[in-house]
Amino acid sequence: MSVTTPKGFRAAGVTAGLKASGKPDMALVVNDGPARAAAAVFTSNRVAAAPVLWSRQVISDGRVDAVILNSGGANACTGAEGFQNTHATAEKTAGALGVSAGDVVVCSTGLIGEQLPMDKVLPGVDAAAAALSADGGAEAATAIMTTDTVPKQAASTGAGYSIGGMAKGAGMLAPGLATMLVVITTDAVLEQAALDAALRQATRVTFDRTDSDGCMSTNDTVVLMSSAASGVAPEPAEFTERLTTVCADLARQLIGDAEGASHDIAVTTVNAASEADAETVSRAVARSNLFKTAIFGNDPNWGRVLSAVGTTDAVFEPEQLNVTMNGVQVCRNGGVGESRSLVDLSGREVSVVIDLNAGSETATIWTNDLTHEYVHENSAYSS
Amino acid sequence: MSVTTPKGFRAAGVTAGLKASGKPDMALVVNDGPARAAAAVFTSNRVAAAPVLWSRQVISDGRVDAVILNSGGANACTGAEGFQNTHATAEKTAGALGVSAGDVVVCSTGLIGEQLPMDKVLPGVDAAAAALSADGGAEAATAIMTTDTVPKQAASTGAGYSIGGMAKGAGMLAPGLATMLVVITTDAVLEQAALDAALRQATRVTFDRTDSDGCMSTNDTVVLMSSAASGVAPEPAEFTERLTTVCADLARQLIGDAEGASHDIAVTTVNAASEADAETVSRAVARSNLFKTAIFGNDPNWGRVLSAVGTTDAVFEPEQLNVTMNGVQVCRNGGVGESRSLVDLSGREVSVVIDLNAGSETATIWTNDLTHEYVHENSAYSS
Repeated sequence: MSVTTPKGFRAAGVTAGLKASGKPDMALVVNDGPARAAAAVFTSNRVAAAPVLWSRQVISDGRVDAVILNSGGANACTGAEGFQNTHATAEKTAGALGVSAGDVVVCSTGLIGEQLPMDKVLPGVDAAAAALSADGGAEAATAIMTTDTVPKQAASTGAGYSIGGMAKGAGMLAPGLATMLVVITTDAVLEQAALDAALRQATRVTFDRTDSDGCMSTNDTVVLMSSAASGVAPEPAEFTERLTTVCADLARQLIGDAEGASHDIAVTTVNAASEADAETVSRAVARSNLFKTAIFGNDPNWGRVLSAVGTTDAVFEPEQLNVTMNGVQVCRNGGVGESRSLVDLSGREVSVVIDLNAGSETATIWTNDLTHEYVHENSAYSS
Repeated sequence: MSVTTPKGFRAAGVTAGLKASGKPDMALVVNDGPARAAAAVFTSNRVAAAPVLWSRQVISDGRVDAVILNSGGANACTGAEGFQNTHATAEKTAGALGVSAGDVVVCSTGLIGEQLPMDKVLPGVDAAAAALSADGGAEAATAIMTTDTVPKQAASTGAGYSIGGMAKGAGMLAPGLATMLVVITTDAVLEQAALDAALRQATRVTFDRTDSDGCMSTNDTVVLMSSAASGVAPEPAEFTERLTTVCADLARQLIGDAEGASHDIAVTTVNAASEADAETVSRAVARSNLFKTAIFGNDPNWGRVLSAVGTTDAVFEPEQLNVTMNGVQVCRNGGVGESRSLVDLSGREVSVVIDLNAGSETATIWTNDLTHEYVHENSAYSS
């Protein structure tokens, strides 16, 4: 159930002293091979953190030997000094492992606009390397947590091979990823191009459709490494499907632990003219603060759903819209449907289905409600 | 200081019983001429309320004799019955005034998805017509309030003519307007085409740049009527400038009374390559929930400003961005600037200036912080 579930990987999580709390704050995942194929996707935010700028270069040749991660500081908006610090972290890791710095991905998460305390980071690299273990996945998953309340791990086993993963992220979850760091490992045998295609397809329908609060981070990274240690070469389609399952599992855990949320909401648009229309409509609803506060108040306020749908350019006629909340069709043909008093929103899981009656395509965006706890946690984060 | 400041107008505000609170809930503004030229802009939400669908037809010939407004119900998502109710309201108003129903604009605000109690609305029309007075502007401004805590009025006097206005709206303030009803009157002599051009220019840089919570209403209406009773024909440019001042005054009052807000925030982007870029960047920041909660917490978290800027496609280089908060340049060249401890966010007014260093264009979006009160008011609205 972790990044060390597949054969050929070691991991560690240690305390370097970056967090005032004294909790673990550095993680290392190493691919011992025999293969070192890898793929990655990064934030599309143009204000990208130093580790993202570095790691984009690392992944360009399709080889990754290790991923070094720190919580307790994002190393974003830190200029040339910040980039030098990322470079030094990769060099230190490479030296400890006997690999090339150009094959070491670096990930950071935490506050923006502050330099990392390198006098703690560099000894932390040594400590992590010394702690590497073939069952260190759980420690690594714990060390990358920030405001997360639980570590997030997932795994799936195919015919003779497996996929394992870990993730962190509890706020700023949005499209193009978002303060989300994800490391996925597999011992399946795949060409780099197949890994890359599988990762892009899997993230497109999972992490990219996870939109907790509409905000996009400067540091998001999802990296997939293959050791090929199983000797088993699955069909790419079967591998992609399994990888998607692992990503969906991790994405679901991220939404389930989003900062201050009291509801996990699946906004599904059906019968759209295109998948893009379905995604646009679901995202517009998922980003409506009025909708999100209504769900917090256990209020099946379908008028706010329709208001959000009406801001999009998707194909639909207003008088043909239906909205179903937790199984009750509260809006029918753009007007009043079943009684909203029939809707039970007291549980954590909420399903909103918008029927556009304009085609046959579907897409779901996973989001959270907007709560007092969200306001509290995010108004106090840096103080 | 009201819609009855210009000559040729009468207004009234009465209690028809639409609000459970027993507060005034219907308003009427009548143009007694001699001219009846008018212009209007409406929500761009495709799920438009019945009164918007009706009033778009009314304005198509450029003549409006009266505007009848109700709070206590939006008459949105109410189907054919809802449209018939709007029509009946216009007919009743026309009958009471001896004008054509086709020249009566109807505005509604309140909950979506419920039919108006016409047994109260129609007697309310008669009561409002009976209460019409040449100094009834203040009563009208009070009767259109929903969650507003104060009535909003403004006026400006030129050489021999004046402009007066009233507005309501305290949530869902967003581009393309938003649960915002605005009636503006003038006794200046202007052709209908000049009125229309002036209104579009004035709203483009005022109400359209007022974005309290990113949500767009189904009912927004801004209507401008000219009686020509002053006999003075101002230069269109001078009239447009004065009209813009009145609209800006009303927009500022809307932001100042936004639901649950504790800060009024002006997000200004300067040195942009285009005005569209400047507006896009300012709006992206104004819509970031992480930025808005930080301001609520009096936290000058410029990293969240840069994160939002980075999601846009505006022309800029990340390492050339500067951010100034209440006069302190906390971010310089994309990195740390002056100490954030120098920023005082304890007052209600907040100024955030983003320098793109990419041109010479500027745009400001006015918004609010995201607070506990916002969550509270909007999670309890319909229950």
